[in-house]
Parts: sequence; structure tokens; C-alpha cells
Amino acid sequence: MSRMKPFRDLIGFEEAKDMIMERAKPLARTERVPLFDALGRVLAEAVHSPIDVPGFTRAAMDGYAVRAEDTFGAARMSPRILGLTGKIPVGKMPGLSVGKGTCAQIATGAPLPKGADAVVPVEETDDADGSIRIFRPAHPGAYVSAPNSDVAKGDKVLSEGTTLDPPHIGAAAALGMNELKVYAKPSVAVFPTGDEISGLGEPLREGAVYDINSYTLAALMKASGAEVEIFDIVPDTAEGLKGCLKEARGFDCALFSGGSSVGERDMLAGVLSEIGNVRFHGIALKPGKPTLFGNVRGTLVFGLPGYPASCLTNAYVLVRPAVRAMAHLPQAQRVEEAVLAERILSTIGRHQLYTVRAENGVARPAFKESSAITSMSNANGWIEIPQNTEFLEKGTKVSVYFF
Amino acid sequence: MSRMKPFRDLIGFEEAKDMIMERAKPLARTERVPLFDALGRVLAEAVHSPIDVPGFTRAAMDGYAVRAEDTFGAARMSPRILGLTGKIPVGKMPGLSVGKGTCAQIATGAPLPKGADAVVPVEETDDADGSIRIFRPAHPGAYVSAPNSDVAKGDKVLSEGTTLDPPHIGAAAALGMNELKVYAKPSVAVFPTGDEISGLGEPLREGAVYDINSYTLAALMKASGAEVEIFDIVPDTAEGLKGCLKEARGFDCALFSGGSSVGERDMLAGVLSEIGNVRFHGIALKPGKPTLFGNVRGTLVFGLPGYPASCLTNAYVLVRPAVRAMAHLPQAQRVEEAVLAERILSTIGRHQLYTVRAENGVARPAFKESSAITSMSNANGWIEIPQNTEFLEKGTKVSVYFF
Repeated sequence: MSRMKPFRDLIGFEEAKDMIMERAKPLARTERVPLFDALGRVLAEAVHSPIDVPGFTRAAMDGYAVRAEDTFGAARMSPRILGLTGKIPVGKMPGLSVGKGTCAQIATGAPLPKGADAVVPVEETDDADGSIRIFRPAHPGAYVSAPNSDVAKGDKVLSEGTTLDPPHIGAAAALGMNELKVYAKPSVAVFPTGDEISGLGEPLREGAVYDINSYTLAALMKASGAEVEIFDIVPDTAEGLKGCLKEARGFDCALFSGGSSVGERDMLAGVLSEIGNVRFHGIALKPGKPTLFGNVRGTLVFGLPGYPASCLTNAYVLVRPAVRAMAHLPQAQRVEEAVLAERILSTIGRHQLYTVRAENGVARPAFKESSAITSMSNANGWIEIPQNTEFLEKGTKVSVYFF
Repeated sequence: MSRMKPFRDLIGFEEAKDMIMERAKPLARTERVPLFDALGRVLAEAVHSPIDVPGFTRAAMDGYAVRAEDTFGAARMSPRILGLTGKIPVGKMPGLSVGKGTCAQIATGAPLPKGADAVVPVEETDDADGSIRIFRPAHPGAYVSAPNSDVAKGDKVLSEGTTLDPPHIGAAAALGMNELKVYAKPSVAVFPTGDEISGLGEPLREGAVYDINSYTLAALMKASGAEVEIFDIVPDTAEGLKGCLKEARGFDCALFSGGSSVGERDMLAGVLSEIGNVRFHGIALKPGKPTLFGNVRGTLVFGLPGYPASCLTNAYVLVRPAVRAMAHLPQAQRVEEAVLAERILSTIGRHQLYTVRAENGVARPAFKESSAITSMSNANGWIEIPQNTEFLEKGTKVSVYFF
């Protein structure tokens, strides 16, 4: 019978985070994605324009292309009258040109015809039997967009490291780019281990519970910019864990959460120290005491608590920041102030993560017990209680970290 | 030659939004998705638990399963000594039972054996040659989770309308559900029209610009919870537009943005009023004057300005809220206060949307011209300037709406 040992040498929460972030390097791996699929991805290179945008002088308003000097002195009561020579279609270079005393109907975006140097908006004109009456003078260049007024050839349009939003996608489209070079998404392997879990959709074995952690972890990792694969459930044996760690080498990050007992955690630590490295095992964090971090080759390995609420809060505070860093994504933790609706007792000696439901500036405890997924699903975030605080009084102002 | 008319009867910005939201009904259509793919989707039905979670009494700590009364009076200096009868494995019902004066090693999550009614944590015990010394008394029920302590059979675990986050996914997993019934994503068709645009990846025709709007709109619609299809570029003719509107009937929403001239917009309005309805055409909004809204059967139809910055800001303020409502998603517009770094001139008589780059509480104008995609891609949001404001002075406190 394996001897169970309590945890020793717990490291501090801040130290644990630092050790993880030190090793969570932004990925160098890149890939090309169609522009249509590039939303939310991170640019792996600066984009310089291969063209001028627009590539020609164009009308900035619907109206008439004119020689500006022909309009000088125009007023509502003394319009200038210009002969209409035709219409400039959008999308191709105009065949006609505008000579002295004439004008051409032009639509926004159409290339300015030869001879013209300004556009008079349609609102400032009237059509008098084929001649156009101009009611206001235009200066040369009025309502005309110069070539490259948006982007000049060679301009840096997007910077490396940009998280692509719709306007950025538009900037790439303006250059005619139908794909972009982006950083690869971190690949995360989730290994459900343990004899106490049943797979979803299967009948629940007596004495077992369904595999919650694989799905919460997968969802959180996707939300953090990763690609996720959930492996089949394996027994919590040295052989089983060794197999997982070998599979893990093909991924940027591997997550374990199956076993929750000290003995089983020790087993992952043992196997990992054999074929990789254990960086720490045990944090002065509640929940999170059994949490383990290490690596096998370049793959980061996390051993998370088995209880669903413990597993997921630990993943929020420790794994998500690491994966976002690997993905080149900004840390986007939403934090808001709220007032505690009830007194919360805490544990001296461990930094505590406590789930709450925060609404309209009031945070209510949502924590039931670490084993309960409802401690999470009834919450929308958590508060942190420092190591040396015994309780938080009702009415205390707290920072709520949102899921 | 078609006669160009200026816009008449502009409706107010608020009125336009109200008319759109009145018709943007949450979709009734549902679909079943694998739990693995359910992140961010919206539940179409409440989830009630078909089982108790856990389905058995289990240990809440690593330690020893005991009869509580056998531990009464225990203390560090006068431990109670119990005979060890064996180890309870996780994941199946225990074969052994705990009799008077005995205990069984038990791991967190393992079913409590018959006879036992409490768990003593390993930290409060010592192993003395096969007997276990207990240093603290346990009350009946100590460190034991009752069946259904997380979820009771029949409990409502998730509500209809919930946008699924990782903890919600976990709650469904706890019940063994490997798929969920969610609302269908709104389907959005994007119709690039106009002779002035070239497809991405093609050589740019002289006098043409690349199709920017289809890609910015597609990205924004995806970010708003929609499924998007971009159609092939069609010429801005009555025939072409009629074909698009026929295709549009298979979608929840159709977006046009190709032509930007008054004449061409009139054409969409004309065709739409023939085979559907035009609800409004022209808003007292800058940019947004030519914006059109209507429907063909149950499909919402938007005619957006052709200029990239105009098109996209209009889509942010008018189309996004509608699509999010159809998707049953909360309106999640991030708004933050900032101070204007420069004076901004506005236009009397039209509500104005003005792109800015806001950082560290300071908003700098990023607007170049409506034709410029860089008016958007150098910005990270916009401010709104009321209809009757001529300018905003440097130092004015403004609300920044973020992309």
C-alpha cells in the first residue's frame, strides 16, 4: 500500500506564476491563413503595402468633375453653367476628358477624368436641360482623393504582433492580400486520467463521476487561443502516465487533472521527473495545493487538482496566462471592483481563490465546495484572498476576476 | 443617364436603431452541438440533471474512513489507534467495510465504505506499523460529501439563454451530456456589388480598388456570433441586385455595400421595394447618410455605405446589435471614458461617428477620410458626436466605444 504524504515545501502563488511565465515563451511557429479566417489571430510579420491605395485620383463625392477655375465666382443667384460631356463609370479609367467650360457626371470612387481637378457635390448643382448649373465655387482638389491618400506603396499598414480585428482585416483586404502569416495557435493536450471518471455519453459506472475537467479545460484553452485535443481516459498508473507524457511531446502544453490524491499526484511527479523535469509541486494556494508544473522537452506540463472547481480556478490563474503568452495574445483578464454581500472566512497561510457571482457591483459567494462544478457554474468570477487574511467582512471592496 | 438625387427625409439615428432592433428577433432555430464545440454558444433549453452528482457518498479529503465515534477524545498527546483494514480505490464501490476500532485508507473522491461516517485527513494521522494513530476527533459527516451535494437529480443546472463559458461546459459534463441544444447562429450573406471592386488575390484592375467591405463585414459578423458567406462580386445592376436578394432569402441577414453613389443606392432601394420592403433609406448620421434597411420575407437587408470606414462604423452601430440579438447574445459593447487629445470639428445636423485611438484614458483622432480603411485600422474604437454639436474641444471627456 503506497504511503500518503502531506505536501511539503509549498511555494508561494506569485513565485509559481513567475516560474510558469518564465517558461511560457511566445511560439515562433507560424502558418498562413485565409483572410476570411484571420479574425482574432496574431500577425507574425509586419504588412507593408505592395500598392498605392487608391491607385488613382478619384472622386470623394457624387457630383460633377470640373476644372475648378470654371466654378470660381459661382453662387446660388449666379450659377456657373457647364456643358455635360458624359458620365464617368466607376471601376475603369475614363475615356472622356473635361475641357474648359464642361463637366462630367461622376460617382464617388470613380477615377477623375483628364482635365478635371475638382468635384462639385451633386447637392450644389442643378441639371438644366443637359447643362449643369454650379452654385458654389470649388477649389482645385475639392472632393478629390489623391492616389495613395489611404495607403502609399511601401507603407507599414499592420505591425507584427497585432491581434487582428475587423478593421485590420480590412487593411489587409485593401492591399489585395487573401491570406496572412500568423503565429500558430499553441497546441494543448488534455489527458484525462484516473479510475474514478467515466466518459461523457457513457453509462456512469457505480462509484464514478463523469469527466468534467477535460471539457472545462478544453473550453478555457480554446478561449485562450489554443487548439485542443482531449485524449482517451487512461488509468492513473506509472505506465499510463508515461504513455501520456510521451504523447505530450508533440504539443506545446499538456494538462493532467485526473487523480486528486497525494499518492496519485506523487506518481505524476515521479514519472515526470524521470522523463522530464518537475519545476514545482505544491503551491500555497487554496485550491491548488497539489498543483504541479514542469516540462518534458519543450512541452509545458501542468498537473492540476482533480476537483472540478479547484482544477478550473487553477487553470484560470496559472495555465491561461501561459497559453495566451505562447499565443502572442495580450493578457485580457477582466477585473472589476465589487462589494462583498456576505462575510467570507479564509485559510491562513494560503492565498485563496474564491468563486463569486458579481452583478451590479455586488459580489456574492458562489463557492459550495471544491468538488462541486456548481461552485463554478453558478459563479461568474472569483476573488483572491491574501495568504494572511482570516476573513473578509461583509461590505469589503474586492476585485472580481471574471471568467 | 440616371439622374442623381440628394437624399431626402433622413431619419434620426435613434429612430433607425429602434426600427432595426424591432425587427431583429432572436432566432427560434436550434441545433445540437458536441459539448467540445459548445463554448460561446447560447443554450436553447434549460438543462435539468438526470442524475445525482455525485451519485454516492464520497471522501472529500485524502485520509482515513472511520466511524466518527471511534475518534472522539483523540488529541496529539493521546491519539486513538485504529486497525487498518485496507485501501478504498476510487472509481468503484468498496468491497470492504469499516467496523468498530478500524479504519480504511481512502483517497479524495472515493466512495465511503460501509460502516464509516467520516474521514480524518491524512495530515491529522500517523502510520504506526499498520495501525493508524488519529490525532483529532472527527464529527459524523466530517470530510464527507453526501450524494447529490453538487447536483440533485432534477435540479435545474443551466438556464435557457445562457452563453456557455468553461464552467457551464463543466456543469453539462458533470451530467454526462456530450452534446447540447443551442440556438442556431444567425446566417449572414455578404454581397459584394459594384464595378469598382476587384477580388482579393486577383490583379487589381486599373481604376478599381480591392473588395475591403466584404472582409471587414464578414469578420465583424463572425465576432457577433454569426455564420457568414461572402458571395461573388456582382455588377451593380437591377438584374444583379435582384439575383442577390433572391439568394438572400435563404439567410437571416443580407449585407450590401458595393455601390456608394446615390444612383446605385437608389437602385438597391428600388429593387428591394419591388420584391421586399424598404423600412428606411437615409439616416441623419455621419457617416451613414445612404444607409438603407429593409427586408425580403424574413431576411433583414442592410445597404451600407461603400466607403470602408463608413461601411464598417455603420455595421458596428447598426448591424452588430441586430445580429447579436438574433443570436440571443448579450450586447457586449465595451465603452470607456477618455479625454480628447485634440479638438474635433463635427457636422451640424447629423449624429457623427468618429474613429479614435484610445490608450491610457486619452483618445486621439484616427479619422483620415471615409474612403480610407486606415481610418479604421489605426483606430481601436469610435466616439459619437451628437447631432447639434459643432465641435468637441481638446480635453473634453468622451465615451469611447471599442471595436
